[in-house]
Amino acid sequence: MSSSSENILSVSMIVIGDEILNGRTTDLNGSWLSKFLFKRGLELTSLRFIRDNIEEINNALKAAMDESDVVITSGGIGPTVDDKTKSTLANFFGKKLIERDDVAEIVSENYIRFGRIWNRESNFYHFFPEGFIGIKNPKGLAPGIGHYSSDKKLIMAAPGVPREFMAMVDEEFYPMIKKHFSGRLKENFQTVIRTQGVAEEKIFFELCPNLWSQLEAFGKVSSLPHTIGIDIVVSYQGNSEIHEEKNEQIKKIIMSTPIAANVWQWGNSPVNELVLQKAKDKKVTFAFAESCTGGLTSSKITDLPGSSEVFYGSVISYDNSIKENVLGVKSETLKKFGAVSIETAIEMAEGLLKAFKTDYAISTTGIAGPTGGTAEKPVGTVAIGYASKNKSGAYLFQFPGDRVRLKERFSDKALLTLLELME
Amino acid sequence: MSSSSENILSVSMIVIGDEILNGRTTDLNGSWLSKFLFKRGLELTSLRFIRDNIEEINNALKAAMDESDVVITSGGIGPTVDDKTKSTLANFFGKKLIERDDVAEIVSENYIRFGRIWNRESNFYHFFPEGFIGIKNPKGLAPGIGHYSSDKKLIMAAPGVPREFMAMVDEEFYPMIKKHFSGRLKENFQTVIRTQGVAEEKIFFELCPNLWSQLEAFGKVSSLPHTIGIDIVVSYQGNSEIHEEKNEQIKKIIMSTPIAANVWQWGNSPVNELVLQKAKDKKVTFAFAESCTGGLTSSKITDLPGSSEVFYGSVISYDNSIKENVLGVKSETLKKFGAVSIETAIEMAEGLLKAFKTDYAISTTGIAGPTGGTAEKPVGTVAIGYASKNKSGAYLFQFPGDRVRLKERFSDKALLTLLELME
Repeated sequence: MSSSSENILSVSMIVIGDEILNGRTTDLNGSWLSKFLFKRGLELTSLRFIRDNIEEINNALKAAMDESDVVITSGGIGPTVDDKTKSTLANFFGKKLIERDDVAEIVSENYIRFGRIWNRESNFYHFFPEGFIGIKNPKGLAPGIGHYSSDKKLIMAAPGVPREFMAMVDEEFYPMIKKHFSGRLKENFQTVIRTQGVAEEKIFFELCPNLWSQLEAFGKVSSLPHTIGIDIVVSYQGNSEIHEEKNEQIKKIIMSTPIAANVWQWGNSPVNELVLQKAKDKKVTFAFAESCTGGLTSSKITDLPGSSEVFYGSVISYDNSIKENVLGVKSETLKKFGAVSIETAIEMAEGLLKAFKTDYAISTTGIAGPTGGTAEKPVGTVAIGYASKNKSGAYLFQFPGDRVRLKERFSDKALLTLLELME
Repeated sequence: MSSSSENILSVSMIVIGDEILNGRTTDLNGSWLSKFLFKRGLELTSLRFIRDNIEEINNALKAAMDESDVVITSGGIGPTVDDKTKSTLANFFGKKLIERDDVAEIVSENYIRFGRIWNRESNFYHFFPEGFIGIKNPKGLAPGIGHYSSDKKLIMAAPGVPREFMAMVDEEFYPMIKKHFSGRLKENFQTVIRTQGVAEEKIFFELCPNLWSQLEAFGKVSSLPHTIGIDIVVSYQGNSEIHEEKNEQIKKIIMSTPIAANVWQWGNSPVNELVLQKAKDKKVTFAFAESCTGGLTSSKITDLPGSSEVFYGSVISYDNSIKENVLGVKSETLKKFGAVSIETAIEMAEGLLKAFKTDYAISTTGIAGPTGGTAEKPVGTVAIGYASKNKSGAYLFQFPGDRVRLKERFSDKALLTLLELME
């Protein structure tokens, strides 16, 4: 009945713990894993959220092993008594927890990575099911758990903390999957076309009604809305030669459509990484004058190691007094055109360039809502300004969404403006 | 085996559809439902994501009905051929799909709410399982499906579109649950103790080895690591009087332990919300001088509506030239003590207070890594400074984690420093 062919390697995920079911935290691991697997040609067959409870873990394990080749669990492997995954897994496969020197070594190394010392009295991390595989935790202390069962199923348990879960899946579990199921893994490639400024329905129903079926000749097509536009994704299996060839052919098709001018990237890199790389390549410095984005644009750049080489800093001018006193925006400009205007955005960028002595300055001033909108300038309006030695200017844009989403869109648009300015 | 009592009304949710499992969209309904139910004293026992596939729907229905009183599904009740929920539900209970006049009326009303006309040729919405309950869709066209089974289980199916799902659960399903299980609904409460500066294992294995079992007398205990510490959570049912009483008793226990001084909040609010509320209450303004946090501290404040009332803005002084020229940090201070030092942090905060004319200024300067650490000041070191009219100062801290995690920890610690300063 399933739409998947027999050959696709199937994965079931079990998220163990009360904190998602009782609404205290929002799951990040499940949605991350679904994307991670898809890119690599694996199929996530099911995703179960259950409580930290032996009976429910047993039932979920049984069902997951029935339906999939690989079972990945998250949560319940910490040091406290409500963490039951390890002992339940051991029982499930009829194994005992024993003191394991090899696991003690892994734990010790996990601690050393954090500059801490572990000893066998600290906790029970080194009590581990007989014959199971102890797994390094690249971003945390608790070791992961692996077991390749007699009926050729691979079961792996990771911590629930998203950073730890993601690093462990990426660096440890995926290589284990490749090792055990090498014959059934085919590399998945994607051709990604990132567009901006045009809505999903407008692309596929109005401007390019045949595009979807044209692209389907190359593989599975999907369309993913992003902060500032639509990513069109074509997925297929093959090798790097096929990938390059399809990239070229798909590019030709897109270039012949009305959305050619909306493409801002033939690839899948985040805009902050592209900005940082470009600035390093061109050996130029930059700074931001942020109003409505409130620090988010700068934070996206400073998330990246090495950003201090080219990013000097920012002024967050949330209050108009800061726009005037620190950035030198004229009070007449604010009065006449308002804080959210082309004119203010230009003066913010020019004032920042002067104060910070960088090669480029980018400004954002807009209305993130929920209040503050007017008929003329509704919530979602943003002016993005730029300044360099030779020129300055600004654009006015309009985006949908709530406050947090608008901050995201405004800041990605500001980064894209900087990227284009450096080119 | 479950820690929940027999009396708590239990709900299982089944999310039907491929788009979440293949990573195309992120689930909103599951996390929303978990919060919705928890507040109303119902327990979400499990949450399953499955594909739009008859066999998998049947398996999930069977498991969900075994473990819970109420089963809620989302997805698969639209008009297209890949929507299989209605017919599968009918088959599951041995019912036939028949043409139903009462359901046709509901569908007709759903359409009228959108200013549209429906007729029996439009689709098959009015073909409905015999004896099942047709449910109004407050925000969409497809009717919901309800069935109270002979073994006293309540099964309800809603559309997958989050707006439609949420409105239908709130306005239609919840009243149906109350009608069928009125005697078994009790309100849920949590006592949350938020600590900082002490590791999870240190609390439960070293400093307070009996705390966990002491707290278990009050309800279900869990321990959740956060950016700057551990949240200890005790969950139980009752009423607001019992809640207050347990709060007091648990507080007394914690206050008698060595971690009393590590508690920074008796409650469950995010630190950015507490900062904003406190500043509004005290009618004071503030600003940040961010180095290592690179805008994240400001971004957390500006995520909140109304922040512009009290937050003036920030200087992100990533480059030392900005620390000197914009914030007025003395070059001798930077030379003698380094950028990451108590002395630099104080001068950053003092300089910002002068430039921005706020009541409070907070500074962050640290090493987020991966490079830049030394033996004396390793990656994870941060100096957090503060300044107000009357006093200034700084603290030096040390945190674990990678770059992005450290930015999170540094900025939450800066917000907490501001919160304490305002008290």
